[in-house]
Order: sequence, then structure tokens, then C-alpha cells
Amino acid sequence: MKQPAAGFTNFELTREFFHLPPGLTYLDGNSLGPLPRKLPASINRVLAEQWGELLIGAWEQAEWMVQPFRTGDRIGDLIGAPPGTVVVGDTLSVKVYQALGAALAMNPGRRIVLTDSGNFPSDLYMAEALLKTVGEGHQLKVVPPTEVCAQLNEDVAVLMLTEVDYRTGRRHEMTTLNKIARECGVITIWDLAHSVGAIEVDVSGSNADFAVGCTYKYLNGGPGAPAFIYVSKAIIDSVESPLTGWLGHSAPFKFSPSYDPGPGIARMRIGTPPVVGLFALDVALDVWELATIGDVAQRAAELTQSFIAGVERTCPEIELASPRDPASRGSHVSFRHPEGYAIMRTLIANRVIGDFREPDIMRFGFAPLYNGDGCVSTAIQELRKAIDLKPWESECFKVRAAVT
Amino acid sequence: MKQPAAGFTNFELTREFFHLPPGLTYLDGNSLGPLPRKLPASINRVLAEQWGELLIGAWEQAEWMVQPFRTGDRIGDLIGAPPGTVVVGDTLSVKVYQALGAALAMNPGRRIVLTDSGNFPSDLYMAEALLKTVGEGHQLKVVPPTEVCAQLNEDVAVLMLTEVDYRTGRRHEMTTLNKIARECGVITIWDLAHSVGAIEVDVSGSNADFAVGCTYKYLNGGPGAPAFIYVSKAIIDSVESPLTGWLGHSAPFKFSPSYDPGPGIARMRIGTPPVVGLFALDVALDVWELATIGDVAQRAAELTQSFIAGVERTCPEIELASPRDPASRGSHVSFRHPEGYAIMRTLIANRVIGDFREPDIMRFGFAPLYNGDGCVSTAIQELRKAIDLKPWESECFKVRAAVT
Repeated sequence: MKQPAAGFTNFELTREFFHLPPGLTYLDGNSLGPLPRKLPASINRVLAEQWGELLIGAWEQAEWMVQPFRTGDRIGDLIGAPPGTVVVGDTLSVKVYQALGAALAMNPGRRIVLTDSGNFPSDLYMAEALLKTVGEGHQLKVVPPTEVCAQLNEDVAVLMLTEVDYRTGRRHEMTTLNKIARECGVITIWDLAHSVGAIEVDVSGSNADFAVGCTYKYLNGGPGAPAFIYVSKAIIDSVESPLTGWLGHSAPFKFSPSYDPGPGIARMRIGTPPVVGLFALDVALDVWELATIGDVAQRAAELTQSFIAGVERTCPEIELASPRDPASRGSHVSFRHPEGYAIMRTLIANRVIGDFREPDIMRFGFAPLYNGDGCVSTAIQELRKAIDLKPWESECFKVRAAVT
Repeated sequence: MKQPAAGFTNFELTREFFHLPPGLTYLDGNSLGPLPRKLPASINRVLAEQWGELLIGAWEQAEWMVQPFRTGDRIGDLIGAPPGTVVVGDTLSVKVYQALGAALAMNPGRRIVLTDSGNFPSDLYMAEALLKTVGEGHQLKVVPPTEVCAQLNEDVAVLMLTEVDYRTGRRHEMTTLNKIARECGVITIWDLAHSVGAIEVDVSGSNADFAVGCTYKYLNGGPGAPAFIYVSKAIIDSVESPLTGWLGHSAPFKFSPSYDPGPGIARMRIGTPPVVGLFALDVALDVWELATIGDVAQRAAELTQSFIAGVERTCPEIELASPRDPASRGSHVSFRHPEGYAIMRTLIANRVIGDFREPDIMRFGFAPLYNGDGCVSTAIQELRKAIDLKPWESECFKVRAAVT
């Protein structure tokens, strides 16, 4: 992608790329990014001009069949993945399963999959299910995030982590962990759900083996947008996918009765690409022609620092749950309060949109592509007001909370 | 869904539901159904009014979260599945894997998965991969379609078939096979890719255990539209999915570290629903408010019979590859010719769209929702012309075929 020179991202331009309802302070792009303004018209063209006019011919004529690679390469630009190492499709949970199955096959003599309690639950569920299917005494070892490094050794088959914790924003040191993992012969899988489009990641430079991620958060691909998977160039022609769908075949349209994996990243495809969702994502990625990930990450650090400072100054009764050093976290920050749920409901009612994660975490995502200083000050001010209201004492709130 | 009384489907009305380019004879709805006219405007509303205005709140306020069940119930109406037994999501290959993993867990003492050589290759690939992951001596036994019945016995764990053969249209006797399977304690999985929306299917009445299908063929859901899975009510609360994504959890937003399957069909969800593709499919299903599946199936039998008779009369040099009895086939018919590829390319160039399947099969799908008698006569006439042209002798064709 063509991009501005580093340091020259114009955030007023990127802000204009998105539609945001007037008066809304949207700090939940870490869950679902906002709608790119031009997206409906672009999707209309895919529907009317491609599907409508070309019908089945569009797979070739509109190049639908290769779009998962093209969009994959654009995502690759944001995470340090060279062309031909990323492909788009499926949900993140399915991609986690696929990466883990392929990784286990690379370390057949080892039985332990190491992960941490900060991993996203779905990653843990999928891993548990896969290990149960594999049998053979495989074990998912879940340790606290701080103990991951100490637990890396020659018994571990795969290290599977989410780089940025979905609750606290705590960020793992990917480069260090990959280095130690490699020394121990451990295959690495990184879930970049809360990293891609938010912070600088270099999967290739840091020697990650696999990476996966979703695209509806900081990539603004839309609700349920397809996920992606990265496989390192060094192993891409030898990995064995545990989910061998026909589009991962070397010649899908030969309809051979036996499976032969496609070249490189093609083998990580599974079924028919989700064309409409894929093009929606591709349109959303156009914003990266106006911005560099370095500028975005730096600006996010400024916004989150400013938010933390402001909240701690004005709301001393709530506790920071995120690392204080911006280099040690992603693009969202979290605060704890025993009544966090009630406070967040009140904030949302007052048009400051963050979200709540059990048991007591209030999350605020800052996406500099569309969030600026105004969002920081409004959020601080409304947070103070929401706490002062003591919404958890209101009878009305108690009744509503009991039924939801 | 509200539907017309049996025998009262107005095919002029259903034809109007779709956009088809003028002058095109589209006989490939068995690969990709055409665009419903109202779909772009409907999707625009989902994008602009729901995603654009409600953002993250749309998961509840626009009821995105329950849409996979609602759309699933509408598909259920077409295959004899009661409400609450079908859910939409993922690709068909992933759903095949999920059904097979769950089915194997129900028959832990048995090692054989019985299928046939008429099954879609991706189903075979996914099954092979799953059995390899399971290990323990599991075996995929692939027999000719005619031998399936004879091979059903107490050694078989799972019978996994595609009801309608993607090449020839040959249809399995689902009711008979399910009855014998049940007597032998065999769990059944039916791939309805070429059945749903084309012929009458009764998964519940015929006692199928699992069914899966795609929605971009006769359901016209659009390119890469999400797949569906059906699980029989009798087993739905005890099946164990091998792909335990967070949305299959009983309480996804509690973010519990351990998996607890959701109630009923909810446990067959995996990741975040593909909202845009899901709504596109839902709009496409509105055509079933104008038509009954019984009327569509009967009309398809008439059209395919008329096509077979016409082709055999005017093109005696090509050989019918489909069963002659309409009750024994789906909604497409196939003919063999050693130069089938060249003939089909010529037909397509002359705006009669069928498709070709290796090694020598020309497929013609008839979808009465938008195909009528005129399509039958045009296709017969153009087929005769295409054969007479002997396109396989043209130098130009040989050169082009060599490079594609």
C-alpha cells in the first residue's frame, strides 16, 4: 500500500474516512470499528456489478478467488508479514485451531501447549477441544502471563499467546518470547486480535511461526468480518493444516478424491471465501493509505497516557488495570471498580461508549484513526459524572441489572 | 415463513425477485444463485443504519447475536427441521468437520466412517484430516454410491454422505439409508449442498442425526454465504462439538476460562457471526414467502425432464450422466462428452451458463424460481450449435485451453 511518510499521518483526514454518529464518543473500536463512509457504495458495486451481472463468472472476472490473498497481503503490511504469507477467511477461533493443529504436527514428540490466563477464552476453548481430539496425553498448560517466560523449555511443543490481553491491554514481549521459544525448539502462535492496526508488530522480524487475528476491531472490517492467518515463509511450504478444505487444495477445481496441499499460504484456505465480508474488509483497509501504523501506535500511546493521567487525577477511587508504560500495552486501557458494570452502563447512556468485562473491568479503546483529544477529555469528564451518580444505588438500575 | 398453498406458487413472481442480466440463460444456480433485486438496498440498511449508527450496540439492538438462529430456522422450514435445530455460520467444510467430530464422539467404540465416491471432495478431505487428528485406527471407507447400503453394518461409526451428487445429480435414498443406519447404530450426516432449496428433504421425518449445507447455491445467499448445520432434537443437548468456539459457550460474555456448551443448537456456533453475509442470506430467503419447496421441486422435475428429452432428441452424440427418474436426482442434470470442456466454454460464450466438471461432465442446473421453459429450449438449441461448431478443433481454442 502507498502510505504517507512516517510522522506525516493526517488524523483529520483519517477521521473523515469513518462515519461516527454526532455527539458519540466511541471508545469501543477494540470490539467493533466504525463504518468507513465509502463502504456501503463499494459493497453495492460488488453486489450489483459483480454478483448481479457476472454471476458465477465473477470468481474469475472480478477476481474473487484471489481476493483472500490480496487482502491478506494488505494486512501483512501492518504486521511485518511479507507478501504471500497471510490469507483471509473463517473466524478467528477456526484460525486458532488451524494454526495449533499445524504447529503440533511440527513438534510430534512433545505434548505441552503453553499459554496464559490472559489469553482470550475462545483460544483456550479451541485448544482444549483440539488437544482432546488429538488425545495422546497432550496438555494445555495455562500459566499467569508473568510466568510464561520461565515455563518455556524443551518439553513445550507450542507457545500460544494473545499478544495484547483483551481485558487489561497488557502486552507480551513478542520478540523476546519468540527468541527463547526458538532456542527451545518451541513453535509460536500469536493471536493479534488486539494488536493488528493498533500497535507495531513485526511477525517476520521477530521470528513468529504463526499469527492469527480478527479484522473487525482496529481494522474496521465490520461485524463478523473474516479473520486472517500468517505462516512464516520458512515453514509455509511444509506446514500441514488440520482443516483441509477444498480451497486449500493445490487444484481445487480438479476435484481430486485425495488432498494435496496448495502452494504456500494457499493451503491455509478452507472453504469458499466470504466475498461480501472480504470486500468490506478490503475497503476498510484503504484508510491505511492515509496513515502509517507507526504514527497510529505513537498517537495511541499519547491518547492513552493522557486518559490515564486525567482519570487518575479526577477519579482517584478507580484503579488502573493496565500497564502504566505504553510500550507494555495495546491501544486500550482498563480501570477496575467494584461497580464497573453500573458505571459503564451509565457512561453508555450518556454516549461515551466503552465496554465492561467481568468481573470489574471497564475498557476504553483509543483508535487514533478516529479518536482524538476531545474523546479523551469527554470520557474523563463523563466518567467522573457517572461515578458521582452512584448508579448502582438506583432501584431502577438494580431492577434492570437483575433481568439482563 | 408464510407461504402460498401447495400448488399455488407463482413462478412469474419469484422470477421477478431476482436480477438476471438480459439475454442470459443462467443454468448455474447450483454453483451460485443470482442476486435478489432488493438485496443491495437491504444490505445498505444493515451497513448504514445498524453498523453505522448503532456500532457495537447493534449486537443487541439490531439483534445481530440471535440472527444465526433466526436464519437457521428459516432454512429449517425448507428441510423439515423444527425450530431451534439449525444454526448458520462458517463454511460448509468447517461444518462437515464439526458434524463428523460430534458424530464420532457418539460412537466411541467404532472406527469406520462410511462415505461414497460421489461425495464432494472437500467433505472427504475434511474427514481424512479429522480422522488423522483423532488417530486410534479410524478409517474413512469410500465406496461407490451403489454399495453404500450393503456396507452399512455394526462396524460403522458414522455414515457421511452428500445427498445429491455434485456431478451427476444422483440422489441417495435418505429415508431408507437413515433407517438402516439407525438399526445398525450408525450416526448419519447428510450434506445438503445440492438439496436445500432444490428438492424436498425431511431431515426430522427421515431421522437424520446431522445435516449440513451451503447457502450460495439454491438458497441464493451470495458468494461465500455462510453454511448451516442441523442437529436432531433427540441428541442436540448431548452432542459434543469438536470446535468449541466462544459463541458456542453457554455464557460467551462471562469469558470463563473453561468451556461449557450452550443449550441445544447454540453449541454448534463457533466464532463471531458473519453479520453482513448472514443478512444477505436472510434477504434471499424471502423468496420462500412466494414459493413452496414442493412446487419448486415438482417444477424442477418437469424442466429437467424436458431438457433431457430435448437434448437426447437433438444431440444424440452426448450421453446422459444423470439418473433418468427425476425422483432419483436433484435439480441439475449432466451430460458427458469427451470434448465437454470445449463445448461448455462455447455455450458460455454464447450466454448459456452451465459448468464443467472433470473429466467430461457438462452440468446444467435448473432453478424454477427463475428458470422456465424458455431456458430449456434456448439451452438445447445452443448446445446443438456448440457441438456443431466443433470448438475443440479450433486452433484458437487449443491455444487458450493450454494456457488456462
